[in-house]
Amino acid sequence: MSGRGVDGALAHLAANPAERTRALAELVAIPSVSSDPRRAPDMRCAARLLARSLARAGLDRVSVARTRGHPLVLAEHRRRPGGPCLLIYGHYDVVPAGRRRDWSSPPFTPTIDGRFMYGRGVSDDKGPLLCHVAALSAWLRGPGRLPIDVVCLFDGEEEIGSPGLRSFVRTHGRRLGATAAVVSDTRALGADRPTLVTSLRGKVVCDVAVAGPRRDLHSGQYGGAVNDPANVLAGLLASLHDSTGRVAIPGFYDAVRPVPAAERARLARHVPSDAAFLSGTGVREGAGEAGFSAFERAALRPSLTVSRLAAGGRRTDSIIPSRAAATVSLRLVADQRPAEIARQLRRHLADRTPPSVTTTIATRKASPPWTLPHETPQLRAAARALAASFPHPPVVLPSGGTIAVVSILARLGLPVIMMGFARPDDGMHGPDERADLTLLDRGAGACARLLAELAAPDAQPRDRPLELMLA
Amino acid sequence: MSGRGVDGALAHLAANPAERTRALAELVAIPSVSSDPRRAPDMRCAARLLARSLARAGLDRVSVARTRGHPLVLAEHRRRPGGPCLLIYGHYDVVPAGRRRDWSSPPFTPTIDGRFMYGRGVSDDKGPLLCHVAALSAWLRGPGRLPIDVVCLFDGEEEIGSPGLRSFVRTHGRRLGATAAVVSDTRALGADRPTLVTSLRGKVVCDVAVAGPRRDLHSGQYGGAVNDPANVLAGLLASLHDSTGRVAIPGFYDAVRPVPAAERARLARHVPSDAAFLSGTGVREGAGEAGFSAFERAALRPSLTVSRLAAGGRRTDSIIPSRAAATVSLRLVADQRPAEIARQLRRHLADRTPPSVTTTIATRKASPPWTLPHETPQLRAAARALAASFPHPPVVLPSGGTIAVVSILARLGLPVIMMGFARPDDGMHGPDERADLTLLDRGAGACARLLAELAAPDAQPRDRPLELMLA
Repeated sequence: MSGRGVDGALAHLAANPAERTRALAELVAIPSVSSDPRRAPDMRCAARLLARSLARAGLDRVSVARTRGHPLVLAEHRRRPGGPCLLIYGHYDVVPAGRRRDWSSPPFTPTIDGRFMYGRGVSDDKGPLLCHVAALSAWLRGPGRLPIDVVCLFDGEEEIGSPGLRSFVRTHGRRLGATAAVVSDTRALGADRPTLVTSLRGKVVCDVAVAGPRRDLHSGQYGGAVNDPANVLAGLLASLHDSTGRVAIPGFYDAVRPVPAAERARLARHVPSDAAFLSGTGVREGAGEAGFSAFERAALRPSLTVSRLAAGGRRTDSIIPSRAAATVSLRLVADQRPAEIARQLRRHLADRTPPSVTTTIATRKASPPWTLPHETPQLRAAARALAASFPHPPVVLPSGGTIAVVSILARLGLPVIMMGFARPDDGMHGPDERADLTLLDRGAGACARLLAELAAPDAQPRDRPLELMLA
Repeated sequence: MSGRGVDGALAHLAANPAERTRALAELVAIPSVSSDPRRAPDMRCAARLLARSLARAGLDRVSVARTRGHPLVLAEHRRRPGGPCLLIYGHYDVVPAGRRRDWSSPPFTPTIDGRFMYGRGVSDDKGPLLCHVAALSAWLRGPGRLPIDVVCLFDGEEEIGSPGLRSFVRTHGRRLGATAAVVSDTRALGADRPTLVTSLRGKVVCDVAVAGPRRDLHSGQYGGAVNDPANVLAGLLASLHDSTGRVAIPGFYDAVRPVPAAERARLARHVPSDAAFLSGTGVREGAGEAGFSAFERAALRPSLTVSRLAAGGRRTDSIIPSRAAATVSLRLVADQRPAEIARQLRRHLADRTPPSVTTTIATRKASPPWTLPHETPQLRAAARALAASFPHPPVVLPSGGTIAVVSILARLGLPVIMMGFARPDDGMHGPDERADLTLLDRGAGACARLLAELAAPDAQPRDRPLELMLA
């Protein structure tokens, strides 16, 4: 019966590709930039459009739920109390488009060229989100019902840290009754090579400020006689790495779970070479912790980067600025704990702060690393759904990114399936962001199959055993 | 005769203190901020006011001379071709007032409280400049003529590097026929203790930029695998000092002329203690090159400070900025050469730049250090003029600042007399800038006496021999 159901859903999907493209273009045309307060009306407009799509698809209790910030879009389909229930997460907000002149076409005027649609948010995350909506619609309008219960939770604040979702899940999370979650907000290795992400790095972002003189001093009058906050800050930041590229904060690596040699060997067969990994960045030669490949450094190992430096100003080259600031961004791997790492950083900097300047450190963001065991049944169900929808079986990969919502959902005890439908070269967050419509078609198929697979998690092995995909 | 003349001039000065205060208030009320293009009309207004004062005082060929920027005010008095001719320099432009709320009274509404007048520019340099104008006026309206020839050169661009003056002096400098120059744009040790500055530090200001990836990268995707420009910049800046507080650029100290022990001992008797030097800065403990006092570090020794850091931005803590920049400000002492120091810095940074980032260095400003030998006759003439005008004899001091115009005038071969009428606590460039009217009165007297002393540079020794002032 599940087989008949899924065939009906897939047939419905196959019959309506233009409808999906139209729905995506309609959503991408709304400049739902969550970080821009002037876009609040657009945020509401995008939320209402999504709610209408869900209602038209046949979901129940569709609502646009207010938060302190931008609304959440909720919907559900519940027929089997106590049975498996999939929480489908997606986000309809986007990052700012940046400078218009860097784009080949207007960022909020979706433009199709060959198999690609261009526009801000088309790949992150409007396209992948609509794969799930299309799959739900195909089941409900084809077979007429879903093989398992679902609850949809569409976020309008992913790009600004999901504060509303965080508080919603804290209050209502358990009552949602979900038994697993799916998040399609990561990349696939390629359009033919689906990918399941089973680990994410955590994040600690700290603002570091060095304060010295009460006010800016004239360097003619005082230069050479006082500690210069910008110079002190430079020294402190320089002390955070040793000469081999390792982070030099005492204790930093203590909790890092080693990656087994077999897993590193498996990854080496699938992940891009250093040259391929760096291609397009303009960086000819990688750098970082000795003994690891570029991919490993960026996905399996923790890192420390400086995302902001600020002191003085352009027009004041005769001053010793009274204050210098930096933002330090640490990416963490299992089992590093954000609070402990922030403590270590604070101690390290305090120990190295010279007299008569003061270093203060404030944690701006913290999110723990996340991992999902490979033997998780829902992960294996997703692998089967992907294998049946793409030319090649899926690869299970770690990711170096941090997706706050995954930590939020993991804290509910849910296994989170991360199946991404963006290409590595989609230019997420950059100019000329695009989505591969072929990849999205396959993604919608995989979303439809996932519902069936989760309804029968112990289904018979397929032609391509999961071992192959992990090997 | 010179004696009778100077007494007449001094009598005229003593009779008109209110007139001087009124003239100063009138000039301070004009917001002649040279760095603010919207203030160009105010610049012209201040220049015309000065020109009127000079004409009323009885100077000849008074003119407001156009430059590419703000005008110069010129005037002269020539009676003895081939005799001594004093070039009197001053500047009528000011730095921006900063935030209104940091001031106790409006910065361009001169306010008198006891012996102080408050307002932007009152001490730097409008008050001291008007001391010279008052002295000229007193001679011309009292005795009826000046004891030596003079040429006045009043700058409207000192605070922005004097580009117009630089080009004027390059073209017309020799034809001015000056044999010495006086600049009153430095501090005295106190209202009772006049000061002659005989050395200035030079300056090299370099913009340093580290460029890495072609565009900002996401630290989730690349953090740990590429050289992060902000981190690299921090390391480069940290490498510029060693652990003893010395500048670590190879060759940096090679040309530094050592200060004789006797001169250091003399200075130690006059200059503020470390605690007094740092008082008001909010810095409890000095720092810098080991083996030197705070004053020595800031006036006799070269220094390197960082006046600007810039990378990324507040709202983008997930990025690896593609570029990081700093402005490095070096203060030089005799006989360091700016171009050679810039070369050394460039080499030092290039040698330490890791692969796949690029460091570029651009020299933004360069000015050589300046020194005047203590035996210079015009300096001794100025010392006599000050000794007769103040309760205590003058002290001869080095200064850590850089005054571009002094280098410009020194390049003409002129001995430059730097006698300053600002107090160390006048708050130049800060909020609540003020001038001590008592000090300015004494300064006007010293300016009047200077003209007479320069007319008779080999006059008999006074009660207080100059040796005492230098000792």
